[in-house]
Parts: sequence; structure tokens; C-alpha cells
Amino acid sequence: MTTIAVPSQVSIRDDAEALYKACKGWGTDGKAIIEVLGRRNASQRKLIRLAYEELYEEDLVRRLEKELSGDFEKAVYRWILDPADRDAVLAHVELRESSDEHPVLVEISCTRSSEELLSIRRAYHARYKRSLEEEIFDNAKGDTRKLLIGMVSAFRFEGEEINKKLAKSEAKDLHEAIKDKKLDNDDVIRILTTRSKMQLQATFNCYREEEGTSITKNLPNNSKNEFLATLRITVRCLQDPKKYFEKVLRNSMQRIGTDEDALTRVIVTRAEKDLKEIKELYYKRNSVRLEEAVDKETKGDYKDMLLTLLGSDV
Amino acid sequence: MTTIAVPSQVSIRDDAEALYKACKGWGTDGKAIIEVLGRRNASQRKLIRLAYEELYEEDLVRRLEKELSGDFEKAVYRWILDPADRDAVLAHVELRESSDEHPVLVEISCTRSSEELLSIRRAYHARYKRSLEEEIFDNAKGDTRKLLIGMVSAFRFEGEEINKKLAKSEAKDLHEAIKDKKLDNDDVIRILTTRSKMQLQATFNCYREEEGTSITKNLPNNSKNEFLATLRITVRCLQDPKKYFEKVLRNSMQRIGTDEDALTRVIVTRAEKDLKEIKELYYKRNSVRLEEAVDKETKGDYKDMLLTLLGSDV
Repeated sequence: MTTIAVPSQVSIRDDAEALYKACKGWGTDGKAIIEVLGRRNASQRKLIRLAYEELYEEDLVRRLEKELSGDFEKAVYRWILDPADRDAVLAHVELRESSDEHPVLVEISCTRSSEELLSIRRAYHARYKRSLEEEIFDNAKGDTRKLLIGMVSAFRFEGEEINKKLAKSEAKDLHEAIKDKKLDNDDVIRILTTRSKMQLQATFNCYREEEGTSITKNLPNNSKNEFLATLRITVRCLQDPKKYFEKVLRNSMQRIGTDEDALTRVIVTRAEKDLKEIKELYYKRNSVRLEEAVDKETKGDYKDMLLTLLGSDV
Repeated sequence: MTTIAVPSQVSIRDDAEALYKACKGWGTDGKAIIEVLGRRNASQRKLIRLAYEELYEEDLVRRLEKELSGDFEKAVYRWILDPADRDAVLAHVELRESSDEHPVLVEISCTRSSEELLSIRRAYHARYKRSLEEEIFDNAKGDTRKLLIGMVSAFRFEGEEINKKLAKSEAKDLHEAIKDKKLDNDDVIRILTTRSKMQLQATFNCYREEEGTSITKNLPNNSKNEFLATLRITVRCLQDPKKYFEKVLRNSMQRIGTDEDALTRVIVTRAEKDLKEIKELYYKRNSVRLEEAVDKETKGDYKDMLLTLLGSDV
């Protein structure tokens, strides 16, 4: 469930005007920007952009980019974009930077719906004049590349139907690959990239029943091996996305120096999906409310923006 | 361009009634069925199905399956389906039968647009409760499987932008793979499955300029090797789809015993796309009109159906 607090009455025109006022003249009123954008859902934000463009003949996103800076700018920029377009941007940025485990590509291919993933691929074409697969082809290598291209190209079946016999035999295939240290074989990659999420749940359950332990516990935890690290978060993301996101949030604030990019990404991409449940998991796991942790680790408008998306009054 | 002759005035209700009359009682009036369905475009056929269902509380497709038989039934059945649904059926049939070069999978992934291919994958989910990739995973093996999954999962960029430097370097990669007999390497597969069709045209042109001969001429022609055979028709299909389809038609009627499945498939799937140009190519290449060849090789209602789709009066 969503965490953002959308007022019952919203006037798109008033919102556009408030944003214009917040950006006008010297200095920028960050609070006013948060007050509007942090409490509007995706379709309202889209309408606000359109209304702003019509009223002021200027692209709101560009204007905000000029006005804001640092982590606050990044958070607002990611938040205001269409979800599919935002994911295309996140994927592009990740591919241009070096990343060890490719969390963005894993997240968009394992936690978005099949149709959402298609929209992301479409948005990628429109923005970068090439396909996401091509971008991966040119920027990753070896088995990691194979895994990532398979993942983003998947159009997984989303029905309830599962095949128990298949789950059992593929659980065995996965176990053998782990035991023989042959996780880079094509079958492992194909199982993870073509099967439906329901089918994979059944496979992971069979694994636990047969081996007495979860597959994630058995997977090698080798953060220096790019392929194994990416494979590991793929399985975690497929097995329990909310638990996975909780851990990303926890890690982002546990290290010396907060990982703002990860923190922003999870809050922005999950706020309208399952951030409420992720917050509950976070509290259970850490005995600290996520809002408190964010309040301690961040500051200024950036902090207020994140807390607003988490549903707090700031 | 299309070859079917749609009258300027069409009444969907009259069409549904005519089909009902053609199926009523003993015997079936094949001519009447051809007269209606053979001269209606995809959206009209869809409306006719809906109108028939509403008027007679019966699925027209099922009724026709009961009434007709043999090659005529197959042609009518393939023709009446939604194009994406038809392609899903054709792919499913091919995967269930043993096929050496997988022409259907190659054709749907190389000659349909990126959005059309997505619709086919969607139709596959709806009809078979699993993804097309999974079906290939379970029914093909080795490098052929890798190539086919890559092909159907592609969402190729369709803009005009090409990268000449890339075309040159990938033409070289392809040439080296051919020279070293290493066509099963992942790079060859990735080039063919991720690059846009325009980019691949540029690559094949560079190949011709550098090597003085076309890539299709250089590819091994080994019909006994499933992977090489599939790869070869993939390149032919990407390089010049109309020329490829002309050859499929030619081969389907050149052998002793016509290959009705191939003949029907090309006519039905291309009739509303580029069959006019394919007909012209056929005449140029064979000095016989395609209609004459079909007239000679087929008979009965099946013949009349094909000729009607080719735009002849029968």
C-alpha cells in the first residue's frame, strides 16, 4: 500500500501555480514544492506537468532541475517522472556507472509487472534511441550480461497456474548447480528469467522442503564476483521483494556515509506500491521506525521530501 | 501492400448472417464463406465474429472448425483469427511439431514490428497460460534455444538512427565468426537479437562492402544442423523479408507434394502487409504469376480461398 498522503481535494491548476510561485525570483521555496509534489499520485503529477507547461510555456521538470540541487533535486526529479520513464532513467544511470550487483536492473525486472516492464522498455527507446537490451549488451559482460539481458527481456506469465512437478525438478537443478558451483550454466539463467514469479515461488518452496534451508542461504555470498552478486540479489528479489527492499533501506543507512541513491530509489519507486508494508518490516527488523532512521540520517529539504513520501507531516 | 479486395460497402450484420446461412443444415457452402471472409480486413473479421456471437450465441471460429476440414479449414481458421493470436497459434504448433529451422519463430520475431511481437507474447499468455519463452525453453535445445529465446524476447528499437562505426565493427565480428566456424558464440546471437533492424541492415551492408559478397552467401548452408539452419533463415529474414517470403512460397510449390502449411502461412500472414510486393518478386524470379502457380498446385475450396486472398476473382 501507498504511503503518500493525497488530500481529498486537489486542484491541478492551483498546484501548477504554487510550483511556479515556489520557483519564481531569487531562491526556491523547497517546502512549497514538497507540500505539493510530495502529496500527489503519479497521474496527478503528470497532469500538473501538463498544466504547468500550458500555463507557463516551460517544462516543469527542466525548471526544477535548474532550481534545485544535490540529493533533493535527485529525489524530486525521480519522483516527478512517469514511473516507467523514471525506471528507464534509473537503469540508464546504473549502466553508465560501474555497479557490482546491478540492483536497479534486477529490481525493474523482478518487481515490476510484465506490462510495466514493457512500458519501461518502451520509455527506454523514446529517451535513448536504442533498446535497453542493447545498452546492457554494450555495457556489461560475460554471464552477468547474459543474466541481465534475459531478465529485462522477460515477459513473464502472471497467472496463478503452476506446475508442481516442474517446480520440483527445477529446484533440484538449482540445487545441483549450487552444489557443483556451476551457477553460470544456461539452465539456471533460463529458469530465473523465463518462469513466472508464482512458478519460481513454488520452485523455491520445493528447494526449502528438500534441502531444509532456503535457496538464498545456500547461494554463495561473494560480493566480489559480479555475476554471483547479481544472481544472489535476483533470487532474493524474486523470492521476497518486500524483504529485499527492507534490506536495501537498512544497508543504505547502516554504512558510514548514507547511500542516498539507494535510499531515494527505494522510497521513490515503492511509495505508491508497497512502502507501507516495507515500513512495517523495517520496524520489525530494526526496532526503529523507518521515519526515525531517515530523520537521523538525512537533512534539509531532502529529508523533508523523503519523510513526506513516507507519509509523515513535516 | 495488401492483396485482399475489400468492397467499399460492408455490412457486418449481413456478413454474419451470410456465414450462418453458409453453415446451416447439411453441407457447407465454402464459396459463400470465402466470398465473405476472404474479402474482409482484420478489424472487419473481428467485428463479424462479435456480431455472429451476439446473433447466434455461438463462437464462429468453433462453428467453422466443425464445418470445414483439411487445408481449407486450416486456411480459414488462420485467416479469421486476430493477427497476434494467429501468430501465437502458429508458434505453438511449430514448437509442438519437430522443425529443423523454426521458420515461424524466425518470421514472427524478424518480420513483425516490436509492438506486434509484444502482442503475440501477450496472446500466447492468454491462450496457453505460459510465456512463449518458457515454451521454447522446454521444447528446443542448445544454441538454437538460445537464439530463439533471444529473438522472441527482443524489443528492437525502431527509429532511423544507426551507428556506422558499430555496424563496421559488428560486420567484422560476424565475418570472423563465419571464418572461424564459431557462429554459436554469444556475440553473434546478441548482435542478431538486440540490434535494430536498421542497424542490422547497415551491418550487412558493411559486410558486403568489406567482403565483396553478401553475408547470406557466406553463411554455411547446412540444413542438417538445426542451429545453423535456423541462424541462416534468421539472417535472410532480417536482410530482406520479402525476398525470404518469395523463396518460402517458391519452395512450398517446387517440391513433390506441395507444402500447404508453408503456402497457407505466408499468404495468410502477409496478405494484409506486403503480399503485393511479394507477388511481384515471385513473378520476376519465376516468370510465372503466383496465382497461376497456386492454381496449378492446389484445388477445391482451399484453392479458391488462397486465390481470393491473393486478390483474384474466383
